[in-house]
Amino acid sequence: MTHPFDEAVTLAPQSGNLFTGRPHPAYANMVGPYGGITAAQMAQAVMLHPGRLGEPVALTVNFAAGLRDAPFTIEARPARTNRSTQHWTVALTQTGDDGAASTMITATAVTAARRSTWSASDAPMPAHVPRPQDIPRPHEPPRMPWVQRYDMRPVAGHLPLEWNGAEAEALTQLWMRDEPPRPLDFAGLTALADVFFPRVWRRRAIKTPVGTVSMTVYYHASAAELAATGSGYLLGQARAQSYFNGFFDQSAELWNEAGRLLATTHQIVYFKE
Amino acid sequence: MTHPFDEAVTLAPQSGNLFTGRPHPAYANMVGPYGGITAAQMAQAVMLHPGRLGEPVALTVNFAAGLRDAPFTIEARPARTNRSTQHWTVALTQTGDDGAASTMITATAVTAARRSTWSASDAPMPAHVPRPQDIPRPHEPPRMPWVQRYDMRPVAGHLPLEWNGAEAEALTQLWMRDEPPRPLDFAGLTALADVFFPRVWRRRAIKTPVGTVSMTVYYHASAAELAATGSGYLLGQARAQSYFNGFFDQSAELWNEAGRLLATTHQIVYFKE
Repeated sequence: MTHPFDEAVTLAPQSGNLFTGRPHPAYANMVGPYGGITAAQMAQAVMLHPGRLGEPVALTVNFAAGLRDAPFTIEARPARTNRSTQHWTVALTQTGDDGAASTMITATAVTAARRSTWSASDAPMPAHVPRPQDIPRPHEPPRMPWVQRYDMRPVAGHLPLEWNGAEAEALTQLWMRDEPPRPLDFAGLTALADVFFPRVWRRRAIKTPVGTVSMTVYYHASAAELAATGSGYLLGQARAQSYFNGFFDQSAELWNEAGRLLATTHQIVYFKE
Repeated sequence: MTHPFDEAVTLAPQSGNLFTGRPHPAYANMVGPYGGITAAQMAQAVMLHPGRLGEPVALTVNFAAGLRDAPFTIEARPARTNRSTQHWTVALTQTGDDGAASTMITATAVTAARRSTWSASDAPMPAHVPRPQDIPRPHEPPRMPWVQRYDMRPVAGHLPLEWNGAEAEALTQLWMRDEPPRPLDFAGLTALADVFFPRVWRRRAIKTPVGTVSMTVYYHASAAELAATGSGYLLGQARAQSYFNGFFDQSAELWNEAGRLLATTHQIVYFKE
């Protein structure tokens, strides 16, 4: 049986730099698909491109419009290929009722043939965090389909229990993995980078409408290290820095259970009031 | 007398979405121009576009190739315009000796007509920082031209005095402003976001060759607030999270003297060994 994530990131190669796909119902959000799955589809178009050089180093995805539940086309164009790095310009379009193609998502990516160098981390995994197996999964009413596609074990800073406007620190820590478990790869890691609920909900305990506008992922591991992480849990930690006139930022780190920092990610998010 | 920064971000509108400009000698780096001035030029193309909606919220600039000291063309294309947000795809090309245009820089940007909302900061300006006027400017031999275009007053974590391989914390704090002083605007803030020397130099005290590959700026202020900041100093704080096989990340915050967080910025940087 194919994992729903693998179904969701299945793209059909067309001529040139084009790939076709469609939103997957298992990753539906309240309106349109979960942003993380869309980001993963943009990354996957680059991963599937026969002209790709190396592995992902950076990905920025801009959510220009909410996807309709309809087929889409992704163009993944190598804008420049150097000796060891490659720069990608990516765009997702959908055809409207009038037959015209509209840009729904834009992205850029950098891939690189990495060489072995001195390596280190300045962001150690938080200490004294209980193991994921020791944290019960929250008993919550079934929410959006995409939430059911992740096994999330809250460590700190969970979703407010009461939406009472009580301001709180916006730091959240949680263990997370695909549900059912799935071996980690770049597309899967990209989707996990968007799992955190909006910081402004935690900060204010007010459920204002939100939507990610732009999201960046920096990858700090090779395909081999992601494979070695397998279907284990990742510890995610997210916080915010600024909430200003309709937009806040959110930064997060993702470590595997062995304490390796696999990705850092940043996004800027619209909030209504 | 025109400020060299204003000379550098002068772009000549051409037909359609095109603007022409060229690298400015006052912002030259060791090889090619200072990345911050290139990022500012990409932002400026969006700022000058007659079809622009609102003010910058996010900008991602990808440095695909080192610019030659020759004219360039920037295409700033509004890929999608919504009611209150607008998504931009931007590319800088230069024409090679063979007459063919090559993509040197790619970018995406988001602008938005912000509405007044609840606002807050989770990243207060560091306390107990001496005032910029009380910190002497370092006596350094004249380095690259771009460094002379900024008045930098180191607070903590300065450039290693000895390149002796002694590992140290990669946090840097400094006051900074244009030299000569210049009223702050979005282009100026964009350039200041790249002022920090590479974290890996601080971390290792080894001057390995480096180059920014991708840089993102999130703007947390309006044009009016930047104007109110005027030509005052900004406090910048930068740190790293991961150094892995040829690439490290760098995150920074920029506050004005009144303690307002104006921008957060992230980049991923190539390092040689």
